[in-house]
Amino acid sequence: MSVHTFKANNPALKSFVEVSKDSDFPIQNLPFGIFSTDNAQDARVGIRIGDFVLDMSQLSELNFLGDLNFDHSVFYENILNPFIELGQTNWRATREKVSELLQVGSDLEQQKDSVLFPVANVTMHLPVKVGDYTDFYSSIEHATNLGKLFRPNAEALMPNWKHIPVGYHGRASSIVISGTEIHRPKGQIKPNPDEAPIFSPCKTLDFELEMAFIVGKATKLGDSVTVDTAEDHIFGMTVFNDWSARDIQKWEYVPLGPFLGKSFASSMSPWVVTLDALEPFRVASPKQDSEVLDYLKYTKKHNFNISLEVDFIPENGEATTISHSSFKYLYWNMAQQLTHHTVNGCNINVGDVCASGTISGKDENSYGSLIELTQGGKKMIPLKNGVERKFIQDNDTIVMRGFCQNDSVRIGFGEVSGKILPAK
Amino acid sequence: MSVHTFKANNPALKSFVEVSKDSDFPIQNLPFGIFSTDNAQDARVGIRIGDFVLDMSQLSELNFLGDLNFDHSVFYENILNPFIELGQTNWRATREKVSELLQVGSDLEQQKDSVLFPVANVTMHLPVKVGDYTDFYSSIEHATNLGKLFRPNAEALMPNWKHIPVGYHGRASSIVISGTEIHRPKGQIKPNPDEAPIFSPCKTLDFELEMAFIVGKATKLGDSVTVDTAEDHIFGMTVFNDWSARDIQKWEYVPLGPFLGKSFASSMSPWVVTLDALEPFRVASPKQDSEVLDYLKYTKKHNFNISLEVDFIPENGEATTISHSSFKYLYWNMAQQLTHHTVNGCNINVGDVCASGTISGKDENSYGSLIELTQGGKKMIPLKNGVERKFIQDNDTIVMRGFCQNDSVRIGFGEVSGKILPAK
Repeated sequence: MSVHTFKANNPALKSFVEVSKDSDFPIQNLPFGIFSTDNAQDARVGIRIGDFVLDMSQLSELNFLGDLNFDHSVFYENILNPFIELGQTNWRATREKVSELLQVGSDLEQQKDSVLFPVANVTMHLPVKVGDYTDFYSSIEHATNLGKLFRPNAEALMPNWKHIPVGYHGRASSIVISGTEIHRPKGQIKPNPDEAPIFSPCKTLDFELEMAFIVGKATKLGDSVTVDTAEDHIFGMTVFNDWSARDIQKWEYVPLGPFLGKSFASSMSPWVVTLDALEPFRVASPKQDSEVLDYLKYTKKHNFNISLEVDFIPENGEATTISHSSFKYLYWNMAQQLTHHTVNGCNINVGDVCASGTISGKDENSYGSLIELTQGGKKMIPLKNGVERKFIQDNDTIVMRGFCQNDSVRIGFGEVSGKILPAK
Repeated sequence: MSVHTFKANNPALKSFVEVSKDSDFPIQNLPFGIFSTDNAQDARVGIRIGDFVLDMSQLSELNFLGDLNFDHSVFYENILNPFIELGQTNWRATREKVSELLQVGSDLEQQKDSVLFPVANVTMHLPVKVGDYTDFYSSIEHATNLGKLFRPNAEALMPNWKHIPVGYHGRASSIVISGTEIHRPKGQIKPNPDEAPIFSPCKTLDFELEMAFIVGKATKLGDSVTVDTAEDHIFGMTVFNDWSARDIQKWEYVPLGPFLGKSFASSMSPWVVTLDALEPFRVASPKQDSEVLDYLKYTKKHNFNISLEVDFIPENGEATTISHSSFKYLYWNMAQQLTHHTVNGCNINVGDVCASGTISGKDENSYGSLIELTQGGKKMIPLKNGVERKFIQDNDTIVMRGFCQNDSVRIGFGEVSGKILPAK
């Protein structure tokens, strides 16, 4: 589907809500989220515009959504899953309707104080009830960097890497909303190769700069999706920090993969940006330099040009941007990931989360994790005011941002933020 | 808690429902499940007794459950999660109450036709909505056998194996109820090490004889359970077949672990046997011959003497029992597994499933998978009528059973069965 078929993407559209030029949330974006005002009990569906949240339940209450031919109770739910279950046609109709309602000249303007809440006055919640969580490993730069660090005497890339969008099952229960504070994980580590493992708080705590997509259309057990239809199964995307306890991971991960080194927390940005809103930023993937099997071959553009940044904020509160990466670097795209995921008949459900794996670029300043940025902890990263870090210390905060920008419009994700508290 | 504190475990109890001596489901068991009679829409909570299912919703309807001080609507749900959320005190009260109601002389006998359905007339459903699924790897015999097969030139056991109850995140969406037919998975395999991978239906399809426990009490993110309290977080157990596509697994699993080789299906037996019912069969674990870290040390008996069997049924319908194993062989027990799982602060939820990993014993006839029984596909397994197999062929059925037996009582799990259909 071409960019021109979505009226809501028209760069000429203007909202009666004032939106600053550098906002991630102009009227062309309209991402979905779950927010509350007074307490978590009243959490409901909202759409972000500029520095405001549009209350979809209130919009229904005031009879502005008559054109939407489905049960509006989905907007009163504290997760997006029931809305997403309604299907792509209804997601699109909702975004187009909200676009109309927010445009200059809309009748809604008279009642804007009833439906728009300043973001400063709301609390955001995890947008979906996560079913299964899968983490891919789709950046060739990241996989190469980690291969060199973890297995210095072997080929950096495993023989399967260019044939398979490698991934593993992650822990769904510990996916948390941006802003959630996380205690430093404890566990088994083996600081000295010649000595027995010890029990300790993690000493090499890291982040992973990732993006995640949320499954919007289920499949049945035994069925598979094709590369060409895979994107129809994606509702939208968020920025995702897959926190990693490197020392725990290193000792535990052979032969069955990462477990407690990852499962203590993964943080998600609150606003789910639809693939429709990202359409103007669709780009070709890097050329795959090893021929893939037919089921993974594709002809269309399945990547998106999404700039990504990581801020490191130590206790003094001064942010230093330590990485500039891009979603477009990914070797394996989302359509290939989902196709591979279901090729064996594995069923997917609305609300499942698939993360990209750490997104690193070629340049050192585009690496998406501390273990890469510090060359395995060998090099300090300078932060402002003379502070420096190899890994994350207690009371440090990591903030990640994602945004697309062209001459006429900026479509962003906002941020995912997380502060590390001392081990419990 | 000792066996004598549960009145419902008294071997002298007799039910007015006739239960044959070799039944898995005497009045001392009373496992929970989800069943329907007319159609899946009416699925509700049942308790198994002999060849009958006791309808808990009907029991409430007829006012037999007045002693149970909670909202009985949980018995009208099509998953056990809401009932389990009520907590251990209420699980115990329910089992004790049902034990009283089913005893000889109970008033219920007059109305038994309203509340008891012959198992032949009901359909069983997955007992819980699964949150996260974790698969451990806790049999030292299995880990050793697989290590030898997968890494013939290295130490069979990885250096971490005796320090950590190794496990990995599995796929929750594809856990299915016993009886579900499963299409042979397709995917990437690499039959010739010197050639490129090919796309093919799995050629080395296997089962894994496991047991699974269902989490009955949640923890919060950042919290951990201790070995001594871990069992309070377990509602009960089932028999579990973790189907495995060995060729897909072999090519994909390095470095992030099993993914599509497992995620096409795992089959679960329908009746959840409570730890309380298993209490008389509690046994000590095998001695751990390498000292474990303090958080994994235990003093009580945390294993159970549960006999396990695997039947292989080819298309001719003749079952051959090809493995006799026991849950008691497991090197790592459930208390250690759950303690380790949460030591990093990973939160657990009611309905999470933790499987044991393949349960093999020392003897060849106690191996819990075909890859072990056939020495990696080198040896045929003879079945009845001259049939033989290395791996599972289309239209073969695998049946697993679990039961505890002493001089006075038999507490069983029934079976988990699954038939493999041709690839789609």
